[in-house]
Formats: sequence, C-alpha cells, structure tokens
Amino acid sequence: MNRTLVVQKYGGTSVGSLDNIRRVARRVKMAWEAGQNVLVVVSAMAGETDKLLGMANELSERPERREIDLLLSSGERVSSALLSIALHAIGCPAVALTGRQMGLLTDNSHTRARIKQIEAHRAQEVLGRNHVVVCAGFQGINELGDVTTLGRGGSDTSAVALAVAVKADRCEIYTDVKGVYTADPRVVPNARKLHVVSFDEMLEMASLGAKVLQLRCVEFAKNFNIPLVVRSSFDEEDEGTYICKECPDMEEPVVSGVMYDKDQSKITVKGVPDRPGVAAKLFSALAAESLSVDMIIQNVSAEGHTDISFTLPTAHLKEAEPIVDSVAKAIQARSVESDSQISKISVVGAGMRSHFGVAARIFQTLSDEGINVIMISTSEIRVSCVIEKKYTELAVRSLHDAFNLEHEPERVVEPEPASSVDPGDTV
Amino acid sequence: MNRTLVVQKYGGTSVGSLDNIRRVARRVKMAWEAGQNVLVVVSAMAGETDKLLGMANELSERPERREIDLLLSSGERVSSALLSIALHAIGCPAVALTGRQMGLLTDNSHTRARIKQIEAHRAQEVLGRNHVVVCAGFQGINELGDVTTLGRGGSDTSAVALAVAVKADRCEIYTDVKGVYTADPRVVPNARKLHVVSFDEMLEMASLGAKVLQLRCVEFAKNFNIPLVVRSSFDEEDEGTYICKECPDMEEPVVSGVMYDKDQSKITVKGVPDRPGVAAKLFSALAAESLSVDMIIQNVSAEGHTDISFTLPTAHLKEAEPIVDSVAKAIQARSVESDSQISKISVVGAGMRSHFGVAARIFQTLSDEGINVIMISTSEIRVSCVIEKKYTELAVRSLHDAFNLEHEPERVVEPEPASSVDPGDTV
Repeated sequence: MNRTLVVQKYGGTSVGSLDNIRRVARRVKMAWEAGQNVLVVVSAMAGETDKLLGMANELSERPERREIDLLLSSGERVSSALLSIALHAIGCPAVALTGRQMGLLTDNSHTRARIKQIEAHRAQEVLGRNHVVVCAGFQGINELGDVTTLGRGGSDTSAVALAVAVKADRCEIYTDVKGVYTADPRVVPNARKLHVVSFDEMLEMASLGAKVLQLRCVEFAKNFNIPLVVRSSFDEEDEGTYICKECPDMEEPVVSGVMYDKDQSKITVKGVPDRPGVAAKLFSALAAESLSVDMIIQNVSAEGHTDISFTLPTAHLKEAEPIVDSVAKAIQARSVESDSQISKISVVGAGMRSHFGVAARIFQTLSDEGINVIMISTSEIRVSCVIEKKYTELAVRSLHDAFNLEHEPERVVEPEPASSVDPGDTV
Repeated sequence: MNRTLVVQKYGGTSVGSLDNIRRVARRVKMAWEAGQNVLVVVSAMAGETDKLLGMANELSERPERREIDLLLSSGERVSSALLSIALHAIGCPAVALTGRQMGLLTDNSHTRARIKQIEAHRAQEVLGRNHVVVCAGFQGINELGDVTTLGRGGSDTSAVALAVAVKADRCEIYTDVKGVYTADPRVVPNARKLHVVSFDEMLEMASLGAKVLQLRCVEFAKNFNIPLVVRSSFDEEDEGTYICKECPDMEEPVVSGVMYDKDQSKITVKGVPDRPGVAAKLFSALAAESLSVDMIIQNVSAEGHTDISFTLPTAHLKEAEPIVDSVAKAIQARSVESDSQISKISVVGAGMRSHFGVAARIFQTLSDEGINVIMISTSEIRVSCVIEKKYTELAVRSLHDAFNLEHEPERVVEPEPASSVDPGDTV
C-alpha cells in the first residue's frame, strides 16, 4: 500500500515561538501517525528575517546581495533544526535538511533567485525510511555552491517546488488565517471562507493583493498541477481552502471574491505627440529598470496629442518618476502627473467565463455609491477598476453585497450527465 | 613580491555587537591595506550560541546532536555575513564562506567533530584576487554533507587548521585580553603579559586552565608549526603574545607563568589489595566512559593493601563516583572518598629543562606560607601541586613573587655566536 505523501509548509508565525513549534510538531506527528509521509517546509521564526536584515542595513547602505542571502538563510536553518528536535522529543523521527541538502538549485539572482532544478535524493531516502523531512524553506544554492534565497513568499514557492520534486499528493500551506476568503475579513465582516478555489482564480487573487498566497507559488502549483490547501496552523478543525484545477463537479460561482490593493499609484503623461513608438519608448525605459506597470490607458487623440496613464506599485513610484520625466522630455510631452491616492478593486470568478453582465453590475454598484471609475482592466475571470483610494472599503463592501458573497453560491454549472451514476463512464 | 598571508580569528565578544563588527572590519582593512592577504575566521556573536542551545534544551531533554550542529552553525554564518557586509561598506572587498565552502571536512562526531581534511580551493581563489575571506568558524561538514561543529574552542581550532591549509604566515587570535600572562591578572595584580611563549609552554598552560587558548588549537599550531599571536581586538597598540617553536634567540625564562585550576576533585580508593591489575581495572573502567583522569598517586603498600588517589575535573565527579564504587566493590577495596575542595597550582617554564631547583623552590615557598602539598606531578617544563582549594590565590601570588615574574626575565640562554653579526651564517 502506498502511503499518501504530503508537503506541509509552516510560516513564520506558525514557528514564531517554542510553544508554536511544539504545536506544529504535534500537528506533523498527527499526520505521520495517520499513515502519511510528511515533508515539512518551514520559514524563519517570525521577526527573525527582519532582525537580520535590519543589522545588515545598519552596517551598509547597500549590503551585498550574496552576503544577504547567506545571512538570511540562517533563519530557516534555525527553525528547521528546532522543529526536528521538537519532533524527536515527542517520538516522531525527523531529519532537518537545508536548501542545499534538499538539492534545490537556483539561478544566480541573489535575494530573488529562481528555482532551476531540484535533486531530492536525500529527501526521498529519508521519506523512504518513513521519517519526517523538515526542510529549511526560502533557500537554495546556485551553481557556485553559494546560498541563494527566493525572495518574498519564497518559502511557499519552495514548498510547492519540493512537492513537485517528491511527487507529493498535495501541498498544505499553514498560516495564521483559516483559508481564502471572499474578501478581506477586516474590511468585510461577513466575508466567507471559500471551500474550493481554482488555480486560475487564485492566480488572479494573488496578483490582486490577496496576501494569503504568493503569485509564484500558485503559478508553480498550477503548472505542475499540485493541489494546494491553505489552512490555519492554530485551528485543527477547519479544513481550510482547497485550490486545484477546475473540474466538472467543482463549485464554480460567477464571482468568488472581491480584492483590493491600496498600494497602487498612477502616473499620467499629458500632451504626448500621437505617433508610433512613443508608448514603446516609455514602457521599455521602465521595463529596463525592472519596474512593472499594471494598467495602461491612452486617451483618444485630440489635435495630434494624447494622454497616457498607467498604474504601478506605489513602492516603485519614486524610482519611476525620474525615468518617466526624462522620457517625457525626450518625446516632447507636455507634463507628467503622479497620483498615489488611488486603489484597485477587483472582482474575480471563474464563472465569469460563461456569464455576462458582471462588469455591468460592478459599474452600477459603484455608481450607486457615487464612486467614479478611473481606469478599467479585465481578464477572462476578473474585472478590475481603479477608484479614489478613500472609497476603497465602501467599494469592497458594496460589491461583496451586490454579488451576495456572504452566502454559499448556487451551482451555476450543470452536473456532468450520469457521471455520479455510472463510474465506468469516462469524461 | 609575495604578500604576507595572515589568518585573523575574532571571538564572540569581538563580534558581539554591530559596533564591534565595525571595529573588526576596520582592523581587517588596516591589515589588508598594509599589503597583507587576510583570511578572517569568526565565532558567533557573543550569547548567540547559548541562546540557540537554550531553545534546543527547552524543546528536548536530549536534543539530537546532528540537529544541534545544524542549529548552532547558523551563528557563525550570521557573523561572517555581517562582517563581510561591514568590510564592503568601508571599501574592503570580502567574500563570506561557510565551513562547507572552506572545504573543512570532519569525521561524523556531531558537536565535537575532528577535522580530517581541508580543501581550500575556494578560499585560495578569493585570496588570489586579493579579496578578504571571511570564514564561519567552528563548523565543517562530514562525509554525508551534514553540518558538524568542532566543540568547545572550535573556532580557534578551525582558524589554525585553515592557516595550515592556506599556508598562512601566522594565525592571530583576537580576544578580549591582551595576551598570555604570567598569571591570572584577577588573582595577581602585578601579573605581566608575556611577549613570547613556546608552543610547549602554551600547551602546558592551556591544559592547566589558561582559558585564553584551547589545547587543541595549540596542538594543531605546534604540529604544523604555525606561529600564533594572541592579542586584544580592542587595543590596536598592544602587540599581544607571540607563540612559536622554541628558537635560539627566544627569551627562555626558567619560569614563564603560574596557573591554577579550581575545577579539580580528588577520589581516593582506600585499602586496595596490592596485586597486579587492580589499578588497570579502575582506570580502564573510567576511560571506557571517556572520563579523563589527571594525577594519580599510590601509597606505599602496607600489609598487602594500599590507597590509590587520583584527580579529575569536578564536572566529571558525579559520573565517576558510581563507577569507582562498583570497581572498588569488585576488587574488595575498603572504601571510597571524594574531595572537591582541592585545586591544582602549576608552574610552567621551558627553561626548567636546563635548570634544577625549581620544584624545591616551589615546595619551600608553599611551605613558608603553611600550605600543604597533597599531590605532585611534573613534566619536563612543568611542576603541578594539588593543594587545599582555600589556599589557591595565596599560593599563586606567593609563587609569582618567588619567581620574580612581575619583571622581565634575564636571558638564561647564551646568544647564538655571531648569528646577529653575520647573516650569511646558517644555524
């Protein structure tokens, strides 16, 4: 009989104290005793990474990224060793492995490395002996053998990548919330926890500011079709949110959630001569500095001139402004204006693919509240609007109500004919 | 022109705060600017190792030694990364390397591993580019690729071993004292810092309780003939103590220092039947438990019975007593007595080899102070006496005075004929 193989990832808060580490150990042991093979991935203890970074920044205005990686990687080594010790203490055999020992090979981009390959022989060997593997997340090595780290959300990404490498049945992400919600519960008190979300929806949500999962992690899970579970490390009852490929018998509501992102700013270049190549010049200058632009709109041209507006993360505004100014001068635009008092509200739902009228209902709802829509962008399963920042919470609550998200949705897809009656049928 | 290659080792206090790390960085840069190639070995920031061990011990009564090594090794990684960052910040190019990256291979004895081999290609390459290497001390890897640590004093030992591996001209040990003293300055206010000490003397001193250098480190330096310098990381003027092979033009005083060790206890087995093999039985039982015995005396036999006394570190007393009791019963000895109220006073000097009367002067001095000598042991360059613990400080001060140690010694060896006049002469 093959045992189920599960990857469990615990974030910084989940291993943030010795008591919490003991709690995680009990949780891991439960799964192990229930007959599962378990590979655990841990983050650094909460606060540790910031403490180390703070010291580096005190010593240098621009600390070397290679040394930062060596510095930060120690955080996950500590938590993985402690969790392994805690597991042994309660009679659950475990082996702590570093990113290097997990065979996690990355490119050379220190502090934001990309995973190239995983050679998980050592982990396979440990799992084969029915021991728990406790792996230091967030870290790998490059071809020189130097330590690299995977950047923000790196522990989640390494958890999914390791799940792929060891052919796990699923990857469970333990965090301090119960799962993925229809909206931020701090803003919408009657927000509902979702049972199931599709990879595509989760990708949209992650890129729209849902902090529960990082985009890269979801991309990885989707590409390799590893089901994710997001659940609380402090609540053993709640089953969390299951994230997987869409399948016929999955609930597929028209709208799954409402997201917001207040960390967006808008730059408008006014009086741009309307000739080919002008926009390209602007956006390649920004791309050259790795500044990513989100929405772009260009007004209808009037008298051979037009306005170009685009949004970008507020954190990049200071860096972008001088670049935009210099391009604006070069292309003889009239002026440049920045606005950080905006936010982006997004409505996401896989059911939008087959349902019309979602955008219309959004605009109507916002209009009813007297909220002006400044910019719009859409995908197959998402509608995003830029609005004035001060209306953010009002907009989220109104849309949550408008789509009746506090209640479980009715099924909007027909059940597959006979699929539940005749298991011999193939779809 | 070949640059001098120096290994500098900084202990936990020397890198115990960001200010101290900056101070060390300036010190390293000075040497580098003076045209030296520098390989720095650092300990964990003061207190860090104890903090990590404390957490492990809270989680488990007997934490796995393999996981302890992974846990503790993070401390030196942090300090090496921080020092490298601090060096870059003041314009001194540096590369931090872990024990693994230094190629420091050990046996499998976790938490007290022995160095087997060093493959220092990477360090050589960095030094060849005239960059400073900052190496995490105390750690290596075993043949499985698991992290190992070298146990107490391990950073000093790895510094000397690395000095051997990269063929350094000398190994400088930076600490919080100015060098090696004729006696503990806390006990003898007029104790004098020694300019030069021979490896043999330093070996005796280290094994007799001089805490400034660990025995293993000195053994290593002696075996591979790497000169050591012990000096303060807080005092740039003082040149510290130079420790090297004896050479003709070295000051060779009859007595170099007076050491004491209060952490000794004595066990006496009384009424032991005087027949061959009895002592062997006792001491092999202790050796089997890795309990090391220091001095041993056996009384003259009377009526077929004798008493055997030996000393051992007080820390091992509790473990040794039941073993001695059971052997005593087996060999039908009369009784076993322990005494932890003793201390060992030692007088060390390379000049003793050619000078007689040192032991006599020691006994006379102690006798003049009314101090009874309980046990005696000697080597070529050392005389040790066990006395009652309460007389420790009095004994050290009297002996320091008796051998006039507060003053620079007169030369006791003849200068090599003509060696300073005719440099063409070979010795």
